[in-house]
Amino acid sequence: MFENQLIKEILEKYREIWAIGHAQALLEWDSETYMPREGLEERAVARAELSLLAQKLILKPEFVELVERASGVEALNDYERGVVRVLAREIRIMKAIPPRLLAELTKTTQEAMYAWRVAKESDDFSKFKPYLEKIVELTREKADCLGWKEHPYDALLDLYEEGLTTRDVDNVLEPLARDLKVILEKVVSEGRFPRKHPLEDVKYERSWMESVNSEVLRLLGYPLGDKARLDVSAHPFTIGIGLGDVRITTRYEGFDFKRSLLSTIHEFGHATYELQINPSLKFTPLATGVSLGVHEGQSRFWENIVGRSREFLEFIYPVLRRNLPFIEKYTPEDVYYYFNAVRPSLIRTEADEVTYNLHIVLRARLEKLMVKGEIKVSELPEQWNNLMEELLGVKPTRDSEGVLQDIHWSMGSIGYFPTYTLGNLVAAQMKYHMEKDLNLKEKIASGSFNELKEWQRVKIHSYGSTYPPKELLRRAFSEEYVPEYWLKYLREKYLSI
Amino acid sequence: MFENQLIKEILEKYREIWAIGHAQALLEWDSETYMPREGLEERAVARAELSLLAQKLILKPEFVELVERASGVEALNDYERGVVRVLAREIRIMKAIPPRLLAELTKTTQEAMYAWRVAKESDDFSKFKPYLEKIVELTREKADCLGWKEHPYDALLDLYEEGLTTRDVDNVLEPLARDLKVILEKVVSEGRFPRKHPLEDVKYERSWMESVNSEVLRLLGYPLGDKARLDVSAHPFTIGIGLGDVRITTRYEGFDFKRSLLSTIHEFGHATYELQINPSLKFTPLATGVSLGVHEGQSRFWENIVGRSREFLEFIYPVLRRNLPFIEKYTPEDVYYYFNAVRPSLIRTEADEVTYNLHIVLRARLEKLMVKGEIKVSELPEQWNNLMEELLGVKPTRDSEGVLQDIHWSMGSIGYFPTYTLGNLVAAQMKYHMEKDLNLKEKIASGSFNELKEWQRVKIHSYGSTYPPKELLRRAFSEEYVPEYWLKYLREKYLSI
Repeated sequence: MFENQLIKEILEKYREIWAIGHAQALLEWDSETYMPREGLEERAVARAELSLLAQKLILKPEFVELVERASGVEALNDYERGVVRVLAREIRIMKAIPPRLLAELTKTTQEAMYAWRVAKESDDFSKFKPYLEKIVELTREKADCLGWKEHPYDALLDLYEEGLTTRDVDNVLEPLARDLKVILEKVVSEGRFPRKHPLEDVKYERSWMESVNSEVLRLLGYPLGDKARLDVSAHPFTIGIGLGDVRITTRYEGFDFKRSLLSTIHEFGHATYELQINPSLKFTPLATGVSLGVHEGQSRFWENIVGRSREFLEFIYPVLRRNLPFIEKYTPEDVYYYFNAVRPSLIRTEADEVTYNLHIVLRARLEKLMVKGEIKVSELPEQWNNLMEELLGVKPTRDSEGVLQDIHWSMGSIGYFPTYTLGNLVAAQMKYHMEKDLNLKEKIASGSFNELKEWQRVKIHSYGSTYPPKELLRRAFSEEYVPEYWLKYLREKYLSI
Repeated sequence: MFENQLIKEILEKYREIWAIGHAQALLEWDSETYMPREGLEERAVARAELSLLAQKLILKPEFVELVERASGVEALNDYERGVVRVLAREIRIMKAIPPRLLAELTKTTQEAMYAWRVAKESDDFSKFKPYLEKIVELTREKADCLGWKEHPYDALLDLYEEGLTTRDVDNVLEPLARDLKVILEKVVSEGRFPRKHPLEDVKYERSWMESVNSEVLRLLGYPLGDKARLDVSAHPFTIGIGLGDVRITTRYEGFDFKRSLLSTIHEFGHATYELQINPSLKFTPLATGVSLGVHEGQSRFWENIVGRSREFLEFIYPVLRRNLPFIEKYTPEDVYYYFNAVRPSLIRTEADEVTYNLHIVLRARLEKLMVKGEIKVSELPEQWNNLMEELLGVKPTRDSEGVLQDIHWSMGSIGYFPTYTLGNLVAAQMKYHMEKDLNLKEKIASGSFNELKEWQRVKIHSYGSTYPPKELLRRAFSEEYVPEYWLKYLREKYLSI
């Protein structure tokens, strides 16, 4: 796989950087799961020190020089080229942002995350406003440092989804928004899917859902104990500590059990990507999913396309029936409609499949304006509320349910949101192409999930970060990000005609 | 605490090394508790890489030069001098062992640990012999590299207990052995303490002992969740991840419940040392217990002097009664005799207080001979069995119960065993001096454990590694390692006259 001597030398030197990454992943996992409360201060210092150390090692002149020399070599295979691309990109990004700016961003976002929490809890945007203003200012500076051609937002989008441009976002999100509004109106007026389902209010005991989650994970073929774990955290996440050690978390809120189950299945999708990377990429910079959007494609595929399907819910109905005493009053069909209620709502994280991407359209539009300096931070709350009314037909009456709902901007993550929608598009794109090779409904109905995973492994997962996202999609599907599959999927599922 | 500019500069640079140590501790904890099976390969590589990286950072010429300059500075306070001492010692040890020897030792011990396991399982010393021969050869070379004056064993002892010499070991262990044999004979002939107790065979459900362990830890004031954890592993251990994050593990074998409880209390003792280090030493090389012997003193104090005392067992009797249904048939006095059965046995880890140190005497004698080349590895099994008969009056019939029982030598840990006995001595020494300041029996009987901990904090724990072990003991007790207190403790507890 890696034959070139120069690449071998790079990978040999990269091992210590990889090892720091391995440790950082475990430190992060532990911070969210098992760390005692008072471990926080030392943990924060350790993570910051290790991140500086890794940066120092990547930017070592000898290492940079090796990567530069490798960039000039013609006779590299795809994997070797991937190594050079990923490392050169990391070096470029690290070099572009001056230490002074990085330090200021770190300091500001740390304070901003706290201010955001206070502002959200007291429903008072003015407490967050000065921090967000500073973040926007620093982020615009960051975009300039990183460099861009058509729009400063390009530089930021690329951080989360290599090669993604504002033009891509416009081309994908705006047509999507137009069609989604039409679909949403029809779904609501037809009334076949409920706005709210009684099961949303039914309480469960944590141990019941623990059994459901682990039984469902076993049915999905998740290698619990061998190469994977399931734990609990406030916000579910997936982390790849190694190709032989991938961990997901879920949450137990005690009511509306689909949230816990869908979170688990969503993270299972992320984990499957990491677990199916070619083991020969171990210890290299290619040993992880290539981008947030492609990663989210895997999680949404399993959460939505599989997890919310009639066939899947019928298949796991016995598991629900066995562990959740209240299910006996509901048929599999009832459960299907519970998992697929549709209603325009104020909160992104609670949105259904039909409305979800409209929340993203709103954020992307505002981010684009912010980054270009075409909107003042003080105007955000009103603009947010107006856009909500325009896109979803509902209008927040409080900023905590509006512009203050997401943590992302307080963390300086501007340009991140569009990857959520890319995820939905990639999920539907995979469904479309998968159905040319196998009978998806039948496979789900019979629990033959390994065949779905194997298809994903061959087309996407095994490559890790070898190809940049668009090239990966082109190689697999002869196209890039395409909104039509997602619209087709929604129409077939939610509209009667 | 740290005022000197040079020391401040050293500590500033030390932070990244500290951070690697923090990560290494978590990696180790996770490897023994929650890591999925197939995470092993990547974990091993990561740990090896990080350990090389830390070594590289410590041996960086700029860092070494700073430490050397600081060694020459007169006007340092105790803490500053401690920093210089600990770092200079680490540098000296790392520099002394050539990379070639280190690599050979690592490779040999990795193979030897596997060979030892196979040899033990198949009760066949010949399968381990060639590896142990190689280890002894390399270890003798290591001792020479480290340097020694009177005996090569000195160089090895010092690795585990700074400043400990063969002369110390002889002065302490040999008189101890003589008196222990006399005490053991008397205890056995008096027959007041049982050789075996029926509770040893009683089975328990894991959840029962989980409750007992966590309730007892709460009574002891262990800060579960705040600064500490309790988890499960094959071999119980304590690990300080930070001063605000100390973790212990225990084991559940399903029978003979005192093993699980005493393991928990033993590790609680270790954890208390780490938890009570002065928080101002955070992020410095002083932020950990100073040596294995002093550390073991803390664990044995809590396990034996407190945990096996009549007062303690009466105090926790209600906890046992509430959680272990079979206890109702036994009085607190029965439980006391169950916790304190005495019998000469073949296996060190199952030994009682009276016989335990005789197992160590045996190992120390053989190690001394091995390191000096005065005994061949092929002679070890027979010598072991003869010494067992001489010291304990029992003779193994199989090497798996004799020379093959401990993992230590296969790991290259020669010189480690004596610290177990030092632990017992320090525990009894603390008891003796503590009783001059407080009524120990009364404090234990009333569950006033915080007063015991506070006494330990002031005398020993708060200093971390500020003073080398012997100086720490001299400062606290005006003496070093003294065997008499341990003998006095045994006589008072086990002999009627």
